[in-house]
Amino acid sequence: MKENKYDDATFFDKYSQMDRSQKGLEGAGEWHELQKLLPDFHGKRVLDLGCGFGWHCRYAVEQGAASAVGVDISEKMLEGARSRTDSSAVRYVRAAFEDIDFPAGSFDVVISSLAFHYTPDFSRICAKVRECLTAGGDFVFSVEHPVFTACGTQDWVYDGEGKPLHWPVDRYFIEGKRETRFLGEEVVKYHKTLTTYVHTLLTGGFELTGLVEPQPAPELLHTVPGMEEELRRPMMLLVAARKR
Amino acid sequence: MKENKYDDATFFDKYSQMDRSQKGLEGAGEWHELQKLLPDFHGKRVLDLGCGFGWHCRYAVEQGAASAVGVDISEKMLEGARSRTDSSAVRYVRAAFEDIDFPAGSFDVVISSLAFHYTPDFSRICAKVRECLTAGGDFVFSVEHPVFTACGTQDWVYDGEGKPLHWPVDRYFIEGKRETRFLGEEVVKYHKTLTTYVHTLLTGGFELTGLVEPQPAPELLHTVPGMEEELRRPMMLLVAARKR
Repeated sequence: MKENKYDDATFFDKYSQMDRSQKGLEGAGEWHELQKLLPDFHGKRVLDLGCGFGWHCRYAVEQGAASAVGVDISEKMLEGARSRTDSSAVRYVRAAFEDIDFPAGSFDVVISSLAFHYTPDFSRICAKVRECLTAGGDFVFSVEHPVFTACGTQDWVYDGEGKPLHWPVDRYFIEGKRETRFLGEEVVKYHKTLTTYVHTLLTGGFELTGLVEPQPAPELLHTVPGMEEELRRPMMLLVAARKR
Repeated sequence: MKENKYDDATFFDKYSQMDRSQKGLEGAGEWHELQKLLPDFHGKRVLDLGCGFGWHCRYAVEQGAASAVGVDISEKMLEGARSRTDSSAVRYVRAAFEDIDFPAGSFDVVISSLAFHYTPDFSRICAKVRECLTAGGDFVFSVEHPVFTACGTQDWVYDGEGKPLHWPVDRYFIEGKRETRFLGEEVVKYHKTLTTYVHTLLTGGFELTGLVEPQPAPELLHTVPGMEEELRRPMMLLVAARKR
């Protein structure tokens, strides 16, 4: 992504404290569902767009992938990724994921976790991914859910006592820039409709193989404070597709 | 649908006054998008689940379908359908669409317009449709959007002056019964998540071929009062699938 909030020192420090940064995949609330959508990695060449600290690249190699390439625009994220990686099968490339230019058919699997809501142009992503994927290759990604990104506030509407009343949806069909707050910092994201994600895939040479709005893992539901609110609105959308 | 509000005289009279009842397909705001998802009807055997006044059955035959069967549980709707139909290629059957029992492979196309949010069990529908569809047959349907059905109020949150502030989403992952108001009457609907609609198709022997959240036709946007609000939240979900 060309948006590079992750090289902002304050934001990066806060992000680094999140469970998903400290604990990796097991610290990510959606991992139990994303994992089910991933293909068999054995012998595969894997690309991760917006790889962050490289958790998914290392997971792919642990699961038997022949190689994994992580792409991220944030130098700080890539430093963090390299310091956590000791496999020579994983390499990291600094680039905006909209601008990747790998040879045709370079990869068997392309994954991306919570990155595409930072770009306005999903059809460009689809075209780039399709080009570098081999025929029959898998494309699995997560994004913030359109219900979560539509309004732009990315927050509940509260009653007078600070209790969440409901989640507001507005401007759903007005796609584009949203100035949101994440970890107390201003972050620019790009709202896209569900139609844009799915229809762009279907008309862009992909077959849809999976679509899941993840709910919290049952064991977290009654142990993590506030987790029950996660049943009230969808926060993420997980999508699996295959190149025709 | 076993829900049969349409045989309630007051509700039926109000429904009969709606544009979609008076003007047919052209009076339905989503028709311009649904039409694009429909297959070539030429020579096809068509089934319409929750056929109402039979507009889609007659359209299919006008477009060259060999035959069309409309299923609805409401006797009043079927009377209205029969009185509007003069083609012997169209016939109507009174039944709950959850209970259809046509021979395997009886139809080439199954359509349904705004009916499945009246049933709690979409996997049952998928299984029934798959059974009566021929291999490679098309299944195209519209439903109220999960964003529209989640909360249950089916209404905006307003400010003190009656201006819509935003659309509330709540209880998204709590599927099931919603007691809503439609045309001033109490109507029971069943909320389902997007995941339930799409995942049930993908795992139930269908390929997804289209998914659209319809926006108002451009010519209606600035001419019909209140139509601009329709850009603020998705109201319907249109889905096209093909039997594998």
